[in-house]
Amino acid sequence: MKHPEYQMRLTNFMERTRKLFPQKEVVSIEADGEIVRYTYLDEYRRICQLANALEDLGTKRGDVVGTFAWNTHRHGELYFAVPCMGATLHTINVRLSDDDIVYMIEQAEDNNLVFIEEDLIPRFEPIAKKSKNIKGYVILSKKKDIKDLPETSLSPVYLYEDLISQASSEYEFPEDLDENTPAFITYTGGTTGRPKGMVFSHRNIFLIGLAFTSAEYFGICQKDVILNLPPLFHNNGWYLPHAARLTGAKQVYPGRRVRPEAILSLIEQEKITLSAAVPTIWLDCLKLLKSGEKKYDISSLRLVFVGGAAMPRKAMEEYDQMGVKFVHVYGAVEASLISAAFLRPELENLSEEEKWEKRASVGYFLPCHEFKVVHEDGTEIKWDGKDRGEAIARGPWTMTSYLKAPEKSAETFKDGWYHSGDIVTVDEYGYINVVDRVKDVIKSGGEYISSIDLEGACMEHPAVAEACAIGVKHERWTERPILIVTPHEKYREKLEKGDILDFLSSKVPKWWLPDEVIFTDTIPRTGVGKFDKRALREKYSNVLLDEK
Amino acid sequence: MKHPEYQMRLTNFMERTRKLFPQKEVVSIEADGEIVRYTYLDEYRRICQLANALEDLGTKRGDVVGTFAWNTHRHGELYFAVPCMGATLHTINVRLSDDDIVYMIEQAEDNNLVFIEEDLIPRFEPIAKKSKNIKGYVILSKKKDIKDLPETSLSPVYLYEDLISQASSEYEFPEDLDENTPAFITYTGGTTGRPKGMVFSHRNIFLIGLAFTSAEYFGICQKDVILNLPPLFHNNGWYLPHAARLTGAKQVYPGRRVRPEAILSLIEQEKITLSAAVPTIWLDCLKLLKSGEKKYDISSLRLVFVGGAAMPRKAMEEYDQMGVKFVHVYGAVEASLISAAFLRPELENLSEEEKWEKRASVGYFLPCHEFKVVHEDGTEIKWDGKDRGEAIARGPWTMTSYLKAPEKSAETFKDGWYHSGDIVTVDEYGYINVVDRVKDVIKSGGEYISSIDLEGACMEHPAVAEACAIGVKHERWTERPILIVTPHEKYREKLEKGDILDFLSSKVPKWWLPDEVIFTDTIPRTGVGKFDKRALREKYSNVLLDEK
Repeated sequence: MKHPEYQMRLTNFMERTRKLFPQKEVVSIEADGEIVRYTYLDEYRRICQLANALEDLGTKRGDVVGTFAWNTHRHGELYFAVPCMGATLHTINVRLSDDDIVYMIEQAEDNNLVFIEEDLIPRFEPIAKKSKNIKGYVILSKKKDIKDLPETSLSPVYLYEDLISQASSEYEFPEDLDENTPAFITYTGGTTGRPKGMVFSHRNIFLIGLAFTSAEYFGICQKDVILNLPPLFHNNGWYLPHAARLTGAKQVYPGRRVRPEAILSLIEQEKITLSAAVPTIWLDCLKLLKSGEKKYDISSLRLVFVGGAAMPRKAMEEYDQMGVKFVHVYGAVEASLISAAFLRPELENLSEEEKWEKRASVGYFLPCHEFKVVHEDGTEIKWDGKDRGEAIARGPWTMTSYLKAPEKSAETFKDGWYHSGDIVTVDEYGYINVVDRVKDVIKSGGEYISSIDLEGACMEHPAVAEACAIGVKHERWTERPILIVTPHEKYREKLEKGDILDFLSSKVPKWWLPDEVIFTDTIPRTGVGKFDKRALREKYSNVLLDEK
Repeated sequence: MKHPEYQMRLTNFMERTRKLFPQKEVVSIEADGEIVRYTYLDEYRRICQLANALEDLGTKRGDVVGTFAWNTHRHGELYFAVPCMGATLHTINVRLSDDDIVYMIEQAEDNNLVFIEEDLIPRFEPIAKKSKNIKGYVILSKKKDIKDLPETSLSPVYLYEDLISQASSEYEFPEDLDENTPAFITYTGGTTGRPKGMVFSHRNIFLIGLAFTSAEYFGICQKDVILNLPPLFHNNGWYLPHAARLTGAKQVYPGRRVRPEAILSLIEQEKITLSAAVPTIWLDCLKLLKSGEKKYDISSLRLVFVGGAAMPRKAMEEYDQMGVKFVHVYGAVEASLISAAFLRPELENLSEEEKWEKRASVGYFLPCHEFKVVHEDGTEIKWDGKDRGEAIARGPWTMTSYLKAPEKSAETFKDGWYHSGDIVTVDEYGYINVVDRVKDVIKSGGEYISSIDLEGACMEHPAVAEACAIGVKHERWTERPILIVTPHEKYREKLEKGDILDFLSSKVPKWWLPDEVIFTDTIPRTGVGKFDKRALREKYSNVLLDEK
């Protein structure tokens, strides 16, 4: 008797902006530095033109359209035109290897057009040769005449501005799309093995978009001016473009250039209120701010979320002094933001040091997530800041599987819970600290030793350049820690196991002391520059067993 | 291959509060004025006890449990225990007639227990006699011994505190409830005909709860201290109890007494930050504040939402001066909040008068709603502040039918769109003004005449005490307006049609001038005190036709 449930489609967001905020601005930086400035109404019309052009080129519901592009207004238009017409947008991560990209395009079944930034054409040409189902290539560029494009082996090739200029600016977006229709396909960074794909439905993204307007998340509202720094080609641009459209917040796309001068100038000129990114970018900005080369007024910024790595305390304090609040977040492509390190109101009377501890954590879990930290047997840890376990989460937008990867899916998603692979502690207020990766933690006699903490303690030794801790097989304790240490040049051949053990004995619990210390000139690293612990574990697997 | 979608259940909200905010407070005022103060952890344990007690008394999934109660912590406990265990909570509106209540209990199939506030026992006894399927009555009271209850014909009768004190404080809430499981049943006020019932699923309320944390709605967050003024027995307490649990905001239940002294004292003592209600309550509070009888510090209040009627400008200005911001909202049980009259940031430079116009409206539509205003032929009106049509809305928590009322449903819900029955204008910024009810608007020659505006203009005449405008049949124009006017005592028998027409001619368009003015000593009113236009239309239906 009841009418079917309302279907949560991204069209809802787009229509609200069109109706309520037709005159609000979108700003985008072209490849040549030109500033494009148009309204949400202009954008809506271009989105309609794009949808018509796609339809003319044969794009149908269920097709997978690719993008290989920077953070520009054109990419932003694709973010809505493609899903709202019922197709799926696969945002291809330009930072991955050609091999991985070919793999992803095949796995995600990109069977339609790929939209490619003009300067990425040479990058894509070899990929295109290996990708069979792509029907054509559309070049994202300010150019309007296809004759102005450089010679390319991509074929057939179209020009974005040319295509849409010929299309009608009216389009009827379908009203019968199920909310579970795939809207975005995005992949993990793939530091180990192939990148893993995930399908986000309209429902998933609708709900994340709404959550990001929540006062407990970003609190995005129409007063905001958002600088879209997180790449639109990865992790759905941290959903800033979606939440902006739901609320009518002004958006600024920085284009390809995300150098500190460009970022700071944009913040000043456009009065940016909110942004997010990995800390590196903001550390570079800080360096420039402190250099005094040029003055930038960044006081409009009310909030910057940083994730992926810790922002050093000193940098956060320096930004504090400029009135810019940085907040650590914790999350994953699989679950979006899980937690944020806001200071809880009841903690405002803590000492500065205690407050800092909270801000240095990754915060407490955000509304709508279910969050647990579990021991290996599935029981929950104590929230005492000491007990450790794996962080797991589930919720209305947490993924529940990887695309066509049943084994990886079974490993990461259990009963709908995303298993983060992070070993964490949680204090009595819910503040989460990541202490290790599940795969790297050393399990000795049923207890956990954090490889990261052990390395950190060892690296404080003045003679140590680098130290890597791994667990290796042990007959009695299952695993015991060993350290692989690179001494500074002048201490090579001089530093000894006993020095390290003496040094560590005042810094870590006695049972953490490594059973072996191996000195080496270099420690192998992975493609992204981290210690290759997998290789080390293989190499030294039996080092303690052999000893006996 | 994909795991089924995460099911959005209210249990999620409750678990977050238990985990993150176990020590935060809930405050409740007992019938005798005693202040109860406990933590969310205490509350969680009592909710578990309640669930166990319900189970012991035979409550199963799908059962409908009734409440007939004030805004107390016990009612708040029922708000979660019942839906989270898979049963449905029917919050019976204590303001309706006995007949209506019997009707609702039968229609909603209340087949389980009804929880009744102690002072409402005499009110419920005659209702109970006529309601067949109720299995028992649980009395909400601070009393712990059933022997202390007054004599009653209700049978079997239990005492809330007695029941739960015997139950375990651990309960496993089901993990396999579908998000579309009915959670709440609530009815309209029923000013015309029988009240109309609506079923809100877990999904509906989960999403409203999330929306109410959005910066564009109430922006509820953990810093808030919420005064639950909107009755928990109607319209799901405006969802404040739900949003509070999602965010860990402190909650204050004022109990039965919502007199100005009690409200103002609570605001001062508990440092209330947010509340909502109909304007009358706040006007009474203002009167007391201005009387100077006692000083109250209400500066902690950051936001008060008022709906159901307009808050007079002067009162809003006076509250402004105390630093308390009042905002008009527009909505309905069927759709929750549709719009809110915040000042859009781009309008901050308007003159005070122009700003006032915006604040006096019911605002612009809120995120996640789809909103349209349509002419009778379904085309959308122009947003020019003049064109008129019916406001319609749909969205993730808009109802799509009434309970067992196919005809009423077909009238009010079309293709999932809730038809408000309100004739409104919308200005270029989206601000909505309600000008009439669809049923009361006068359709003359294809154009609308607002009965409310016409009455308003007429009532400005110094000799007029009351005026009511209705449309009656007309051969050429389909309908033409007539006015029914009660003059002030001393003008009776003296005021004439010509006086009214002369007076109106400078105030309304010429074609709005009534074809007839009927003088009478009293105008009939409905049960809730509004002009009974239906009766008047029947009585005067042919007055213009007869004339000819």
